[in-house]
Amino acid sequence: MSRFGDATAVKRVGEGRYEAVLDGDFGFAEAVNGGYLMAVLDRAAVDASPHAHPVATSANFLRVAKPGRAELIVDSRKTGRTAATSLVTLVQDDRRIVDALVTTGTLDAATEPSWAGAPPVPAIPSLEECTDFTPGSGEGGFAEQVDMRFDRATMGWLDGRPSGTPEIRAWFRLRDPYEPDAFALALAVDALPPVVLNLGAQGWAPTVELTWHMRAVPAPGWLALHGGGRLLSGGWFDEGVEVWDSAGRLVAQSRQIARTGR
Amino acid sequence: MSRFGDATAVKRVGEGRYEAVLDGDFGFAEAVNGGYLMAVLDRAAVDASPHAHPVATSANFLRVAKPGRAELIVDSRKTGRTAATSLVTLVQDDRRIVDALVTTGTLDAATEPSWAGAPPVPAIPSLEECTDFTPGSGEGGFAEQVDMRFDRATMGWLDGRPSGTPEIRAWFRLRDPYEPDAFALALAVDALPPVVLNLGAQGWAPTVELTWHMRAVPAPGWLALHGGGRLLSGGWFDEGVEVWDSAGRLVAQSRQIARTGR
Repeated sequence: MSRFGDATAVKRVGEGRYEAVLDGDFGFAEAVNGGYLMAVLDRAAVDASPHAHPVATSANFLRVAKPGRAELIVDSRKTGRTAATSLVTLVQDDRRIVDALVTTGTLDAATEPSWAGAPPVPAIPSLEECTDFTPGSGEGGFAEQVDMRFDRATMGWLDGRPSGTPEIRAWFRLRDPYEPDAFALALAVDALPPVVLNLGAQGWAPTVELTWHMRAVPAPGWLALHGGGRLLSGGWFDEGVEVWDSAGRLVAQSRQIARTGR
Repeated sequence: MSRFGDATAVKRVGEGRYEAVLDGDFGFAEAVNGGYLMAVLDRAAVDASPHAHPVATSANFLRVAKPGRAELIVDSRKTGRTAATSLVTLVQDDRRIVDALVTTGTLDAATEPSWAGAPPVPAIPSLEECTDFTPGSGEGGFAEQVDMRFDRATMGWLDGRPSGTPEIRAWFRLRDPYEPDAFALALAVDALPPVVLNLGAQGWAPTVELTWHMRAVPAPGWLALHGGGRLLSGGWFDEGVEVWDSAGRLVAQSRQIARTGR
């Protein structure tokens, strides 16, 4: 296994019941990352399903998850030949932390797309031209687990010069020897800093709801993350992420609705 | 009330329990439209919530809904000051038809956006330049309820000449005297023909999962629907719809994952 594999492992303890130990290093301060939580939820959903992949995950983040023990309850809602749906709930201290509707299916890595849209424009500059703004400090935390190389044009907010456009782009991989799979994609779709930082927003931007779709089995190597948003109004903003793999394929899509302060 | 108002009405029959009568005229053949079902689900969610609007609705379509009586079960998962989340299940004949996680909140119609992206390109041609391909026949059915005027450039599939690009654009309003609101938006985000018809796909394209976000209180008048997709692979396709109101504002966003035959 690997750090990410260990950190997202679920142990079956009964019919539709799992246990996990949430790893605080996949988070910031005391809040565990939402993508990491989805990776854990999706592992439970897939384990309880006849299908191999989390094709659709709609997660509602009800409360902040803390490092430590968690229970997962997988309530099967329908099992079909092509897809199965379950309600997966992550519980800590008898409180619901995340509710997710997860549709599992089985994607064939050998499938050629019938039709594929063009990659997003602009492309992310080469790895060499990008910057690691969050180098591993040796002190643990998210940046120790994930290697991200950012398009500098989207990182002006770090220096108090937000670009004015809610976009952030970056290369992504786990520092682990862990190649992209369904669960790494769950982490990837919520790994970028909030795109509204480029609109001058500050502070924490809690995700209320995030839906992501796994579209293909990813190739080994770096993933390209293209994050953008369409509207910030009344403290609500949307953020969509497309994830492209090293073979140039769209492998995941997400959209979340989140809150921000001023 | 109105036909749409009546058809989506829910009657509270107990704590978190509602009844509705599904109107077959909001559907095609014997299948009731998914957007119509979401309008019914969202009415129940809002009725059971302290908040006024369905800010996020993630619906999983488990089985085909039939016209006639349905029960709705609203299971409150968390109630907060800014938002509340519930699991809403539509049941017919003791079988789950749709499961939806619904986050309610209250949007202020007077709020000016902090930041808004540009409207989609290309714009939809004027109403006069668009075509009503599905005129009301007087025989009932979806086209009798909804007035849609299509951008002809996106309707080649009707004549066996699919455009090759999975996009469909149309103006939308209810034929009723019923101005756009949250529930009309639920109908609108799933009202377009499947965009994969422009890739040569044929037949029914059942939605597996659809998430939509209400972003603003819509102005009276026509709604503009911009539908597009990014990938068709292994029989799975995504379809996203942006809904813009007559005041030129983004009022709803959706993405669904659906199945198609060849």
